Amino acid sequence: MPSYTAPVRDVLFLLDEVLDFQSHAELPGFGEATPDLIEAILGEAAKFCEEALTPLNAVGDREGCTRSDDASVTTPKGFREAYATYRDNGWIALSMPEAYGGQGLPTTLNTIIQEFISGANLAWGMYPGLSQGAAAALAVHGSEEQKKLYLSKLAEGVWSGTMNLTEPHCGTDLGLIKSKAVPNGDGSYAITGQKIFISAGEHDFTDNIVHLVLARIEGAPEGTKGISLFVVPKFLPDENGEVGARNGVSCGALEEKMGIHGNATCVMNYDGATGWLVGEENRGLNAMFVMMNEARLAVGVQGLSQSEVAYQNAVAYARDRLQGRALSGPKNPDGPADPIIVHPDVRRTLMSIRAFNEAARALILWTALRSDISHRSPDKKAAQAADDHMGLMTPVIKGVFTDVGFDNTVAAQQMFGGHGYIEEWGMSQFVRDARITMIYEGANGIQALDLVGRKLPRDGGRAIMTFFNEVGTFLQENAEDADLAPLLGPLKTGADDLQKATMWFMNNALAKPDNAGAGSSDYMHLFGTVALGFMWARMARAARAALASGTGETEFYETKLTLARHFMERHMPETGLRLARISAGSDTVMGLDAAAF
Amino acid sequence: MPSYTAPVRDVLFLLDEVLDFQSHAELPGFGEATPDLIEAILGEAAKFCEEALTPLNAVGDREGCTRSDDASVTTPKGFREAYATYRDNGWIALSMPEAYGGQGLPTTLNTIIQEFISGANLAWGMYPGLSQGAAAALAVHGSEEQKKLYLSKLAEGVWSGTMNLTEPHCGTDLGLIKSKAVPNGDGSYAITGQKIFISAGEHDFTDNIVHLVLARIEGAPEGTKGISLFVVPKFLPDENGEVGARNGVSCGALEEKMGIHGNATCVMNYDGATGWLVGEENRGLNAMFVMMNEARLAVGVQGLSQSEVAYQNAVAYARDRLQGRALSGPKNPDGPADPIIVHPDVRRTLMSIRAFNEAARALILWTALRSDISHRSPDKKAAQAADDHMGLMTPVIKGVFTDVGFDNTVAAQQMFGGHGYIEEWGMSQFVRDARITMIYEGANGIQALDLVGRKLPRDGGRAIMTFFNEVGTFLQENAEDADLAPLLGPLKTGADDLQKATMWFMNNALAKPDNAGAGSSDYMHLFGTVALGFMWARMARAARAALASGTGETEFYETKLTLARHFMERHMPETGLRLARISAGSDTVMGLDAAAF
Repeated sequence: MPSYTAPVRDVLFLLDEVLDFQSHAELPGFGEATPDLIEAILGEAAKFCEEALTPLNAVGDREGCTRSDDASVTTPKGFREAYATYRDNGWIALSMPEAYGGQGLPTTLNTIIQEFISGANLAWGMYPGLSQGAAAALAVHGSEEQKKLYLSKLAEGVWSGTMNLTEPHCGTDLGLIKSKAVPNGDGSYAITGQKIFISAGEHDFTDNIVHLVLARIEGAPEGTKGISLFVVPKFLPDENGEVGARNGVSCGALEEKMGIHGNATCVMNYDGATGWLVGEENRGLNAMFVMMNEARLAVGVQGLSQSEVAYQNAVAYARDRLQGRALSGPKNPDGPADPIIVHPDVRRTLMSIRAFNEAARALILWTALRSDISHRSPDKKAAQAADDHMGLMTPVIKGVFTDVGFDNTVAAQQMFGGHGYIEEWGMSQFVRDARITMIYEGANGIQALDLVGRKLPRDGGRAIMTFFNEVGTFLQENAEDADLAPLLGPLKTGADDLQKATMWFMNNALAKPDNAGAGSSDYMHLFGTVALGFMWARMARAARAALASGTGETEFYETKLTLARHFMERHMPETGLRLARISAGSDTVMGLDAAAF
Repeated sequence: MPSYTAPVRDVLFLLDEVLDFQSHAELPGFGEATPDLIEAILGEAAKFCEEALTPLNAVGDREGCTRSDDASVTTPKGFREAYATYRDNGWIALSMPEAYGGQGLPTTLNTIIQEFISGANLAWGMYPGLSQGAAAALAVHGSEEQKKLYLSKLAEGVWSGTMNLTEPHCGTDLGLIKSKAVPNGDGSYAITGQKIFISAGEHDFTDNIVHLVLARIEGAPEGTKGISLFVVPKFLPDENGEVGARNGVSCGALEEKMGIHGNATCVMNYDGATGWLVGEENRGLNAMFVMMNEARLAVGVQGLSQSEVAYQNAVAYARDRLQGRALSGPKNPDGPADPIIVHPDVRRTLMSIRAFNEAARALILWTALRSDISHRSPDKKAAQAADDHMGLMTPVIKGVFTDVGFDNTVAAQQMFGGHGYIEEWGMSQFVRDARITMIYEGANGIQALDLVGRKLPRDGGRAIMTFFNEVGTFLQENAEDADLAPLLGPLKTGADDLQKATMWFMNNALAKPDNAGAGSSDYMHLFGTVALGFMWARMARAARAALASGTGETEFYETKLTLARHFMERHMPETGLRLARISAGSDTVMGLDAAAF
């Protein structure tokens, strides 16, 4: 059975030595997050994930969820109990607002724990993850009454949350939504329609489920400007939060999926269900975006998490499996064969996964920290810059981390040979589970369009210019460092390619938007490679500083330097390929009639 | 439910206009394969695959195989009947030797039909596919008596065949095989041991199953030089082929796999089973290699087949699904939205898959034709050159077609958004089925090592030099053609990169083999890209000739030209990245202690 160890040491390296987390102690909630507390929290979270959630991962895959004739849903054996422990220990409210029962700690810590949870058990982690998303939307757009009633229950973990966007005929294009809301005359609405692919739409974890639902108020304008957001509880609560009558919403069916079997993916039927407007009429998409951005970052973390756990198990297998001899002569001469970790192609595979994982973790924590700054800093300029960064990085993190994360689970599975294809070994589950992350919360092609069509040009390109300046400043500040030079050269080449690609769009896509569309996915990956390379440059600088200071953990830091070099030599050259593809434009792509495909 | 249309028109284009198949009419079996006969055969094969096999594909995935307590195995509903039709129509013996009941037609035709079958139903196709592999090994290494007894029955299709190599502790490293063979004193051997991952090891298609089994004769040398090949029938036949007593071999369990559920993947237990030596003592690996090379090409075809069927279904969905509007303005103004095939990123994805599929089909048919020449040509030099080509291309076709074929199923699944993740739509099955092709018959890392370590240096690099000459000659012959120039420039750059990479190995890997191992996988893909690009250049030349001759199928040929350009612009630039990675050598890859991973 696969195992999982939460990467606590690597996280502490990033917080303490790369991101200088403690320098933000003046921000609300950061003062409490002392190094000791962080270490204690991460240690406890790691223990829970490794011991309680990891063993349930295969169980969830095998058993899946079951819907009974009364439309109730039973989760896999042990899932409910693990949730009770998680709730009782207060994890869910770690970074929720203190006014509504949260602990107010930095979101960054929650992001770290999200990675641990997803690495241990992706399907399980989606249940509390969706509650956090729903809570985030209510915190920003809910009325005071809604926050007191729903947010507190979500923070307490006795109720859970969902997002209801997709309908059978509309996923990406939410303007096509048909679900309707008819005013009841008492301030509430009667919601009718069908939603599909609703994760955690029904289950047995909590006393109530709080559905956030997009629907169209009778008479609203067509398209995206006529969509409103509603809160629709499974059981109607009184003002004290005591649950009462069953609302007119129920799970019509569970989807049979490729993976994440432990999570209930529901068809949800709304049959005149009572709901209340969240935020303004016809501004539902706007309200939902809060939830979606949080969710997109969380999905990026999920991509990383599957890459990490798949890597760990592939390493264990590669150290254990004896097959063949090293090209440079036997390394295990007394055994029947050498462990396959002696083979360069096996090592190349493992190192490439790891070089991604560590840089991805750095990028997500850097971005999570900026999310905290954007929400908590009194310095408006700093908050704005942090928000710019987050907006720019959200599609990159979602799209690149899940594309590469999935590829990495496949590569890790490959290390097992035939055993990787047998369900018993668990590697197939990582592949099947990771696959959804490329699709949900906006398929990755949509992320690429969001990046190129919306995030790049926003505010005259302010966010991307800031990013180029940050990389440029780093290159300049370290230009004299001969030891870093072999890393900085490739980073500079990559950043130049990114600038060229950005310029190419400016020159070629304004008049012909198809040129942007045809290059969007390559641009997203080009951006990701440069951003990850920047992370490796920063990690390498930190590792060299630690080695120079005479730390005791020589191997830990030297491994970072080897991985940094590996990334620069083997991953950074991708930027040239991406630029070539982008510059090819849309001629061939748009050249065929639809019938000629 | 997914559909499948066998690409007959594209195959005829390749045979007639690109590969000049009819110019080989003087070879045995080729004279019979007139254009009319080929069209008739392919039409019938297409019909069988589309109508009989395609509807069974999802059934096989859902039902899987079942093992009863008596160790018998039941295949999914309809599988057995489809096999009976297939057998009765004589498909299995199409290119088997006439002396043993085959039809003696070119292997090339069989290869085409293998693609159709696998595209329609990969799991089903493995049953007859393994029979053909076993027949090929017996045809070369079996005694006359064995051929008369077993090969005839395999050709007739009343018995089926298997390959038994893998044991729990050994897959790639067959020198570790423990199964033993003890002489019975009557010319037969008692075989004892356990084999795993045996495809089609037990089923209900045929009266008997002919297992080809690797085992070690008592007292044989250790390692690969002490392994022999045995034929071990499930039921012991008399010399007339009448089946008698049950032999001591049985299916101990079925594996629960990620995909190809319709095929029975068996643990086979040999308990003093009676077997007969095939070929010489201790030369079993040699005999098995015949089977393995055939099988590896067939697996490459499987990779292509899944890419093709996934593409076809993604195109159908992209034409049908309405979501969003074209960047250049509505294309379906009267509908609620445009079909998603208007979006450049969707088109880019589809075109990249198709640009691979068509070139891959060209490369496999070119190689299959050369396989025929190597086996059938009386011209020894031509036969040798054809054999060189086949040896060189086998790992490229197996490794690249299955790596890219799998990626393409994932990309095609992505076009479906959330629906792609739901089993009901069938795209998940293509992904899960395609995944095995990267693993079995030698995991792709092994193919890369075979290419770099064995096929490249063999006979002083004769095969690769010949390939470079072929590409070079083509470039020279068409240098004056201004219309082809935009394609030939990128092809030349790619071929130059391949030459540089080959030189890099010569200069850096002889003294340090790890440098070859660390670059082997990138080299295999670099080679594949150049070979596929060469196919596009040849297809483009043929398409231009057809257009110049005033054919009626203008769109067909113009689509070829657009795809050729797409490949050169977006795929060929990969060679630079591969070369950069190869030239990075093995320093970082070998830099960490095994414990530091």
